[in-house]
Amino acid sequence: MKVIETISGMKKARQELGGTVGFVPTMGYLHEGHISLVRYAKSENTHAVVSIFVNPTQFGPTEDLATYPRDIPSDLAMLEECGVDIVFIPTPREMYPRRYSTWVDVKKVTEQLEGAIRPEHFRGVATVCNKLFNIVRPTKAYFGQKDAQQVVVIKKMVAELNMNLEIIVVPTVREPDGLAMSSRNVYLKPDERQGACVLYHALKLAEKMWKQGETDAHRIRQAMIKLIEEEPLAEVISYVSIADGDTLEERHEVKHGALVSLAVKIGKPRLIDNTVLE
Amino acid sequence: MKVIETISGMKKARQELGGTVGFVPTMGYLHEGHISLVRYAKSENTHAVVSIFVNPTQFGPTEDLATYPRDIPSDLAMLEECGVDIVFIPTPREMYPRRYSTWVDVKKVTEQLEGAIRPEHFRGVATVCNKLFNIVRPTKAYFGQKDAQQVVVIKKMVAELNMNLEIIVVPTVREPDGLAMSSRNVYLKPDERQGACVLYHALKLAEKMWKQGETDAHRIRQAMIKLIEEEPLAEVISYVSIADGDTLEERHEVKHGALVSLAVKIGKPRLIDNTVLE
Repeated sequence: MKVIETISGMKKARQELGGTVGFVPTMGYLHEGHISLVRYAKSENTHAVVSIFVNPTQFGPTEDLATYPRDIPSDLAMLEECGVDIVFIPTPREMYPRRYSTWVDVKKVTEQLEGAIRPEHFRGVATVCNKLFNIVRPTKAYFGQKDAQQVVVIKKMVAELNMNLEIIVVPTVREPDGLAMSSRNVYLKPDERQGACVLYHALKLAEKMWKQGETDAHRIRQAMIKLIEEEPLAEVISYVSIADGDTLEERHEVKHGALVSLAVKIGKPRLIDNTVLE
Repeated sequence: MKVIETISGMKKARQELGGTVGFVPTMGYLHEGHISLVRYAKSENTHAVVSIFVNPTQFGPTEDLATYPRDIPSDLAMLEECGVDIVFIPTPREMYPRRYSTWVDVKKVTEQLEGAIRPEHFRGVATVCNKLFNIVRPTKAYFGQKDAQQVVVIKKMVAELNMNLEIIVVPTVREPDGLAMSSRNVYLKPDERQGACVLYHALKLAEKMWKQGETDAHRIRQAMIKLIEEEPLAEVISYVSIADGDTLEERHEVKHGALVSLAVKIGKPRLIDNTVLE
């Protein structure tokens, strides 16, 4: 497994790869969710490339950039174990040199949900993915359904800028009790870790109501909010949304493919999760 | 020579090209300036691809999108004559489908000169070039020095987004009396056509003063403005600038590589021209 830190080195190594390349961009501190993406990348392509880069431009000024969990030695061991070909670990200065000023902005689908709470977050995400796609030139790039809005934004960017790769979305990996895997779960104290299951339970409630024939989005949202409010450690509900899966516009009437998503602050972290109503 | 109208068709044709590809993006109504770019593209690469697309997103609401001169049959004849392999002529709807919302924004170097007068112009230019580069995947793309700020913006976008092509800048082609070739020169009435030479004369004056040892940018600008004001058909001077060639920041003291540029309204069109002080 090669570990590469420079853009020119990564571009050179890419040129030497024959066949197809599956790519998994990450911010490191890898868990089973990431590993699931890596396994898909590995199984569907000749080569697998993983990047580890805590992208400063997707963090807001009051967010956890400085304290975001990092463990490169553990990450590398896990990726080696998966049979990854190349790990790309650039520095912030390598990715954003002095006077850096080019941004990729996906409008409309970034204005609600996470985008409403984190104003420049998706501009940072789109820009860094655009750069990484140009550096790695993957055949397919793999993203987790856990970050549902990110998936919509990246798919839209790739389609609208006519980029030459396919975006593959992989199901969310969960703990046995339903909590979606996230690097930020490490922030949870033991009792908060227990309470964090309320996001999953609220999504399960939405699925159940939908299966029982409920099509009024407002009634489903209200039932979810009521359930979350019964959990004393759920401090702040950022949003509970039932939206169109492509445009992310809120729905009055629920239809197949609707995206149910929510963000709830439990202790220090604001956790997110979602489900698509089939 | 293949003429292709769809993005999927262009991508497919590109896959079948072996060797290197030189690309010239244009808005059509081709003149000797464009042809010069095409000859470079042809001579330096295995294949030459030219696009003709009057890009709506780089025109402001009060600008000449509807009346911008067009002559596809004449353009095709000229390109065939040059030995071009593929001409890509997409429709606006093909390039910007419904709900289109992804934009490439190069900050700082787009805030002055043309960017100050045409607020979203360079966002449109950067976005369409980004798309075209992804569709055509050229080895090298060719731009005229005539649009000096455009060259700075495109080079910066390609470098900062780590795109996989080289930008080649080709000298401005001029009429025998010095007027820079431009599709918009067609708007000039005969007397205005004569008066339009004042831009060239002002640039020549700047070069002469610099060669004679003048390093005070203010004095050179003032002399240029005085010269232009002596031309009665020069209605409005948008700007006369002496700036750093990379950052486009105005200079007090002139140095090697400074970009002298100006924009002057003569009759209907606002003409631009520039020279680099060597």
